[in-house]
Amino acid sequence: MLRAGPSWILILGILLHSAACSEEQQKVSVATAAEAIWKEYSESLNSGDLERWLDLWTEDGIQMPPDEAAVVGLDSIRARNDAFLDKFTVDIGITNQELQTAGDWAYSRGIYKARLVPKAGGRPISIDGKYLTILARQPDGSWRIHRDIFNSNTPPALR
Amino acid sequence: MLRAGPSWILILGILLHSAACSEEQQKVSVATAAEAIWKEYSESLNSGDLERWLDLWTEDGIQMPPDEAAVVGLDSIRARNDAFLDKFTVDIGITNQELQTAGDWAYSRGIYKARLVPKAGGRPISIDGKYLTILARQPDGSWRIHRDIFNSNTPPALR
Repeated sequence: MLRAGPSWILILGILLHSAACSEEQQKVSVATAAEAIWKEYSESLNSGDLERWLDLWTEDGIQMPPDEAAVVGLDSIRARNDAFLDKFTVDIGITNQELQTAGDWAYSRGIYKARLVPKAGGRPISIDGKYLTILARQPDGSWRIHRDIFNSNTPPALR
Repeated sequence: MLRAGPSWILILGILLHSAACSEEQQKVSVATAAEAIWKEYSESLNSGDLERWLDLWTEDGIQMPPDEAAVVGLDSIRARNDAFLDKFTVDIGITNQELQTAGDWAYSRGIYKARLVPKAGGRPISIDGKYLTILARQPDGSWRIHRDIFNSNTPPALR
């Protein structure tokens, strides 16, 4: 039979303390993970390394680029962005502005500047954009991109 | 001094049961709340009722429309959409496709079709779009739109 006494109160205290610490550690680790994700996102695109970029995504991720339908699942995301990287050399810089975590979920919001140089020649496209991204914590503790939507901050005529 | 016994085990059981029930109830209530939000979102825009539509937002909400900078805070959202509703009669229909909750946060993802008729005359604009929205539970238990980003499913030439 369980009996409540000083030892139980001590254990309860330790448990509460552990819970508080792990919550703080989790916040730090999410921020670190998100920072690493955006660094890897831009570096992999800028080096044209599709597989490295795809590693950032969940298997059932959904990419929601402007002016085309949602790209559902990693295979479709691979095909879409393979064609994209075939067409353009990318120079993208990302500035995250907000990160909010709730358990195994987080949203990340920010802005980006991209310069797309057509590999076939022609006028480069400059994009000044913003994004909202859902990050999902995986069973192994890592964080991945699960939903990603973005759009331009300027009308088409100004790009 | 606390003593563990059958009564404590019973109370623990009741607490665990209550926790499970309230989690289930919460899921139902978020789904109901999200459904009501999207119904109200379209109905208020379609009737040109700005204040009704603004009631859906948090005070520090951020609207992220395509082809313009993020609109930060309810006052800016009011000004931006006042001008928008001055310019267009709106007919929007929203189909939510996904709702994921984590504590006091949820994301909602879906598609919409909108027809914007310029009040000054001219060709109506048809938009086939998608969105990702962060909903935030308020201290009073209600849910509000906190972040909302959307973009077109078709290139500008096809609108």
